[in-house]
Amino acid sequence: MKKIDFKNIEINNGFWHQKQNLVKNTTVYAVYNRFKETYRFDALKCDVSKKRDYEPHIYWDSDVVKWMEGVFYMLAKDDIADIKKIADEAIEDIIKNSDENGYFNSHFQTVRPNERFQHRSQHELYCAGHLIESAVAHYTTTGEKNFIDAACRFADYIDKVFRIENSADFVTPGHPELELALVRLYEVTDNKKYLDLAEYFINQHGCNEKDKTIDKEKFSILYNQDEMPLRERTTANGHCVRALYLMCAMADVAHYRKDNELMNTCEKMFDNIINKRMYITGAVGSSHLGENFTWDYHLPNRTAYAETCASIALVLFAARMQAISPERKYADVLERALYNGVLSGISMNGKEFFYTNPLEINIDLNREDHCVERQNWHPVTTRREVFDCSCCPPNMIRFIPQVAGFMYTCNDDVFYVHHFIDSICNDGNIKISQTTEYPENGRITINCTLPQKEIAIRIPSWCKSFKINKEYTEKDGYAYIKNEEEQCIEIDFSMPVTLIKANSNVHSCAGRVAVTKGPVVYCLEGVDNGKNLHNIRIDKSAVFTEEPSEFILPALKAKGFREKECESLYYDYTENHEEIPLTFIPYYAFANRGESDMIIWILE
Amino acid sequence: MKKIDFKNIEINNGFWHQKQNLVKNTTVYAVYNRFKETYRFDALKCDVSKKRDYEPHIYWDSDVVKWMEGVFYMLAKDDIADIKKIADEAIEDIIKNSDENGYFNSHFQTVRPNERFQHRSQHELYCAGHLIESAVAHYTTTGEKNFIDAACRFADYIDKVFRIENSADFVTPGHPELELALVRLYEVTDNKKYLDLAEYFINQHGCNEKDKTIDKEKFSILYNQDEMPLRERTTANGHCVRALYLMCAMADVAHYRKDNELMNTCEKMFDNIINKRMYITGAVGSSHLGENFTWDYHLPNRTAYAETCASIALVLFAARMQAISPERKYADVLERALYNGVLSGISMNGKEFFYTNPLEINIDLNREDHCVERQNWHPVTTRREVFDCSCCPPNMIRFIPQVAGFMYTCNDDVFYVHHFIDSICNDGNIKISQTTEYPENGRITINCTLPQKEIAIRIPSWCKSFKINKEYTEKDGYAYIKNEEEQCIEIDFSMPVTLIKANSNVHSCAGRVAVTKGPVVYCLEGVDNGKNLHNIRIDKSAVFTEEPSEFILPALKAKGFREKECESLYYDYTENHEEIPLTFIPYYAFANRGESDMIIWILE
Repeated sequence: MKKIDFKNIEINNGFWHQKQNLVKNTTVYAVYNRFKETYRFDALKCDVSKKRDYEPHIYWDSDVVKWMEGVFYMLAKDDIADIKKIADEAIEDIIKNSDENGYFNSHFQTVRPNERFQHRSQHELYCAGHLIESAVAHYTTTGEKNFIDAACRFADYIDKVFRIENSADFVTPGHPELELALVRLYEVTDNKKYLDLAEYFINQHGCNEKDKTIDKEKFSILYNQDEMPLRERTTANGHCVRALYLMCAMADVAHYRKDNELMNTCEKMFDNIINKRMYITGAVGSSHLGENFTWDYHLPNRTAYAETCASIALVLFAARMQAISPERKYADVLERALYNGVLSGISMNGKEFFYTNPLEINIDLNREDHCVERQNWHPVTTRREVFDCSCCPPNMIRFIPQVAGFMYTCNDDVFYVHHFIDSICNDGNIKISQTTEYPENGRITINCTLPQKEIAIRIPSWCKSFKINKEYTEKDGYAYIKNEEEQCIEIDFSMPVTLIKANSNVHSCAGRVAVTKGPVVYCLEGVDNGKNLHNIRIDKSAVFTEEPSEFILPALKAKGFREKECESLYYDYTENHEEIPLTFIPYYAFANRGESDMIIWILE
Repeated sequence: MKKIDFKNIEINNGFWHQKQNLVKNTTVYAVYNRFKETYRFDALKCDVSKKRDYEPHIYWDSDVVKWMEGVFYMLAKDDIADIKKIADEAIEDIIKNSDENGYFNSHFQTVRPNERFQHRSQHELYCAGHLIESAVAHYTTTGEKNFIDAACRFADYIDKVFRIENSADFVTPGHPELELALVRLYEVTDNKKYLDLAEYFINQHGCNEKDKTIDKEKFSILYNQDEMPLRERTTANGHCVRALYLMCAMADVAHYRKDNELMNTCEKMFDNIINKRMYITGAVGSSHLGENFTWDYHLPNRTAYAETCASIALVLFAARMQAISPERKYADVLERALYNGVLSGISMNGKEFFYTNPLEINIDLNREDHCVERQNWHPVTTRREVFDCSCCPPNMIRFIPQVAGFMYTCNDDVFYVHHFIDSICNDGNIKISQTTEYPENGRITINCTLPQKEIAIRIPSWCKSFKINKEYTEKDGYAYIKNEEEQCIEIDFSMPVTLIKANSNVHSCAGRVAVTKGPVVYCLEGVDNGKNLHNIRIDKSAVFTEEPSEFILPALKAKGFREKECESLYYDYTENHEEIPLTFIPYYAFANRGESDMIIWILE
């Protein structure tokens, strides 16, 4: 199965054109400025000669190289001289300061030079992984070899220390990420050593005594994905980002090694996530404690952790699975996360970010002024320009430019259309364009000239009726159409507003419904709908109308009900609702108009 | 205004007869055994001569003297030789080990002999207060003077150190309680010095620099009732038990000093509690953080702190207010707390207790096995025989025997009937009996021969229609009836099952109703109604039927609805409820049949 590279797909209109322009014109500069101010770029210089104003943090390198990775993707499409110059300088710094083994880490080289590979929890291999991914991006978009050569030297050194000599104080990365980066390095270098090393780490997780001796707490064991050998797992546990980055690598290794056992584990973990441990927004992470998958159906809305990076990681995992096994559940979940849990992480102006993405905000419940010094955990309610732990903003910068890369996969016989974005793809003998306003509506015109025998188009699971102007057979959620020379396929996915229920085991959604349209989840905000959103009831027979909004997609209007104000704390039940107009906006656009209450799950 | 002493009222039938028998026959022994096992009685011997197996904790004394106080109330009615012997021995120990100043504290005398009156937060004066209350109980029930004489010497010493010399390291008790005890000591000794000292403490709270210098954290300042002068307060803040014990003393002092300003503060604080900060069960304490009143309408059900002692303290405060100012809101709230938030604190077998009383239990949400070492706060789901901090069990022992004392107050003109308990009262020229099955139903026959011109009977606010066989005029929720010689009053308060709504500002009750009958709040338990109680919907037009239960009052049966099981995590909304039978039991009886889910607020 081949993925069609995003570099061969042009997005010149519509939803993602706007988002990509925002990242290219605004976000990349905004994040650069914040990282520059906070010395993250300076840190690459590994300056130990004089008193610095800063001390490089253990994860600063990863922030910068992720920003660079995004820049390289943008440079594949546009010649943006100013940011290219910054990225090139950063590459120079990294190469210049890599030691004779190829090792680079601005924290360990300058703060703790004698403690290399001694601290499993300190993101050392995580930073290495992102550096490798960045180098892969640089090579594949520019063809220049300086950065990837440095990355290979570094990877070779890691292979020597960790796999061949087994001489580090730990065996596997505390924060997985390197594993998937090694597979990407293998993909561009064709050097099997890197795939071997990724496989080695996967096989060692949860199996070796050295790592378990370091991390004795159940907390850390779960957190770091060590509770049992990965192949024995049936559920997604522990730190969500760590878990999902590891699953990406597991899927990759399973694919390249034809390792059915490992693939089976990936499927089980995926199914566990989407059937029991995922928010309707495609977010994951039910608790700030350990930033964890917790347990089945434990999905509290207000205190959701729901890290942006975890939704991105879920997309990356689902993208691998959809390429390997074209069942629509993979692309469905990818799309759910894409339009909701991922996009909510960036503001409409492109400059501010959520690290965690709550599914409900009730500002009043965030108060804990009675005991300032000791607090429960409460959701952050406003986006910020930078975080101390600022993994999410640069992740968005490297993610959004490559979004077209999720659209298509193919093998010799079938060309798969997983996602719908107005775009033109030109990849050798593959030519396919989509004309669509998706996700505003479900009408898509596909013009294609393809070498495959069939073209398979995903029928999204949210779609209950659709028309296609061709004969098709449906299998695993895809409509398989016989290929013709110069084909024009007209699709119309019916996309009405739909009310969604959650499984009755989900405590926080009891008696409530969510409003969705196609893949997009909507929410109520206080700024439109007043206070006490938790008490607003939807009219289940309401007709929804659309209204232009400042959030790309239209707002939805419908009538609902609100309990009439009653002074008493407790009073005898009577019907006392009054009809009110409700304004729903896409969830991804919440918290763009000042601090406000927000709710997705509304009383039915 | 005079309160009719419970010692002059016999309860020989019905609900409270059962509860009082339980405490007398079981609870007092059960708690004694637990306290004995944990060396709380041994600690009174202040043995420092040999190596002890224990170190007296700072609040142990208060546990024992509260148990003793309850014993003295029981001895007023029954000659129970075995427990009398234990209590007498304890008195001897206390007297023998009181020092030359009258000071007694088993912790400070044996563990930190040089640190007397140096630690505001260490319950030293709180223990003294309970010792005084116990001595007052001993004197008023037995007429013996040994214990109260010791208590007076102790109180005199405190007066000297704290008020006259102001030589302690702090000014007011960190945990208020002594203040109300001093008023009680004044009431039985007629020595105004004790009232002066109580008033002094009240006037110093939040006004002196010494206390504020010790407690700098906002947390402690609120916790200890110091955020502002008490007279300026309009809301109930900080640690609930501390706040309410202090309010009791404030009401007492306001009454005896005819201090309208202070009384006005009491009224404002009372109104703030009952209108904005109280659970439907009469419980208070919305957060485990600081065991606090938090803010208006912040009443989370599952994570309620709702300490048993806080509900007891609310009853004690309301009892003072109902005596001073006969508006029914005081007796209404007293009754609400009495039948729900207080009684839930003790098991049906009389041996096990709740310290905190959640309004919802969802066992699954208590899980936090993904990070054993770091947890959110979760409600305790099963009653325990003893706690390290075991204030609630002995509080129940001293509370239940005196419950008849809340029934009646009178002045020269009016005899007030605040509460309804099958009983016979014989207090000099006051003779009044009630024959009733209350709170099982609202039919009450009152026979009385009273010297007052009028008899005023509370019409509970839950009662929407009633019959009285006499002419009456209604004022402030009381029916005023002209007194006749040898009067027989027949009352029938209509007591249907009633669904209650909470104010729309209360987040955790949105879209939900509670089932009540008269003053009693009902709940659903998992043991009767299966899992996912949060998803059960009530039929608002349902007819409730009664069914005998093991919990004194009948269970209520009605039909409701439950969402049909659906495997999917998210699915399109359709009506898919199925009718199910529901069994409601009185809230006070929850958690008597093993660990089980429980809910009060049910989807409407």
